[in-house]
Amino acid sequence: MEQPLQHTIALLGRTPASLDAFLRELPEPLTRQNEGGDTWSAYDIVGHLVYAERTDWMPRAKMILEFGETRTFEKFDRLGQVKESQGKSLGQLLDAFARVRAANLNELRALNLQKEDLNRRGQHPSLGVVTLAQLLATWAAHDLTHLHQLSRIMAHQYREAVGPWSAYLGVLKCAGHSSS
Amino acid sequence: MEQPLQHTIALLGRTPASLDAFLRELPEPLTRQNEGGDTWSAYDIVGHLVYAERTDWMPRAKMILEFGETRTFEKFDRLGQVKESQGKSLGQLLDAFARVRAANLNELRALNLQKEDLNRRGQHPSLGVVTLAQLLATWAAHDLTHLHQLSRIMAHQYREAVGPWSAYLGVLKCAGHSSS
Repeated sequence: MEQPLQHTIALLGRTPASLDAFLRELPEPLTRQNEGGDTWSAYDIVGHLVYAERTDWMPRAKMILEFGETRTFEKFDRLGQVKESQGKSLGQLLDAFARVRAANLNELRALNLQKEDLNRRGQHPSLGVVTLAQLLATWAAHDLTHLHQLSRIMAHQYREAVGPWSAYLGVLKCAGHSSS
Repeated sequence: MEQPLQHTIALLGRTPASLDAFLRELPEPLTRQNEGGDTWSAYDIVGHLVYAERTDWMPRAKMILEFGETRTFEKFDRLGQVKESQGKSLGQLLDAFARVRAANLNELRALNLQKEDLNRRGQHPSLGVVTLAQLLATWAAHDLTHLHQLSRIMAHQYREAVGPWSAYLGVLKCAGHSSS
């Protein structure tokens, strides 16, 4: 297995436990707070990660291996988790994330991907041609984008409270860099 | 106890376990990589958190309660961890962080701070007058700033690898917002 892929699998394997340790025992107001308007909370992020885990990464990887560029990926629904999370507690979502992530990584390892597999190409509905290597790198970078967003959401409550220390706190200056 | 303080203590209590779950089992190249030049790695961040835990937050809180504005805080050494971390493994630093954070939170709880205590003022060597409430909010926001930085450092390796997906990944657009 290529070293970058081993690193990616290692990172992907740590996200559920890290989020669990951070979020499960926090008071609910903290995990439901957002950055105002229709922005996301920690709860929304975990729901989104579960939904992406089920509908995005491995289904697309398998589509590349099976159909190459001849079949375009299903579009990813960025709000797909709203319906699916309904009525679920944060603890249930964290459990689901750990379960589905572990199953996906088992499936990924079992593919025993070789260098030539990683160069195989698929068709993204908006981005055009992408490779399997790019998809797998994006899976990990997507986790990290949401950890980055999560730290910013949790820091939001302290924007005023820190007083003059805001000058030293990078996270309070982050306005986000994309829709997520 | 004020609700914001309860929330701050809850957040501060979760950081060590969350970092442990994320970092302890990662391959060493991942925890030692940085963003180039003399920027920080995950290892550096954990060392910095241990150092700040020992020299910054509770010592300053106690100085406010004891001396108010009449004594200026010791300057915080932003590179103080370099010497202290020398020869220590990441696992040892994670253990130290968990231990010293737990001890500090026990000490903070034992102070049983009331609203009037939180309004007490101290003297920061660069920022001037600050309150105990601001110091405690900054303690939590400082954790979050370094979680924010950590996600960006870990994502650094994927800047090129994600190909066209970089358009969707906020963390890859983050250039940091301060020296840390």
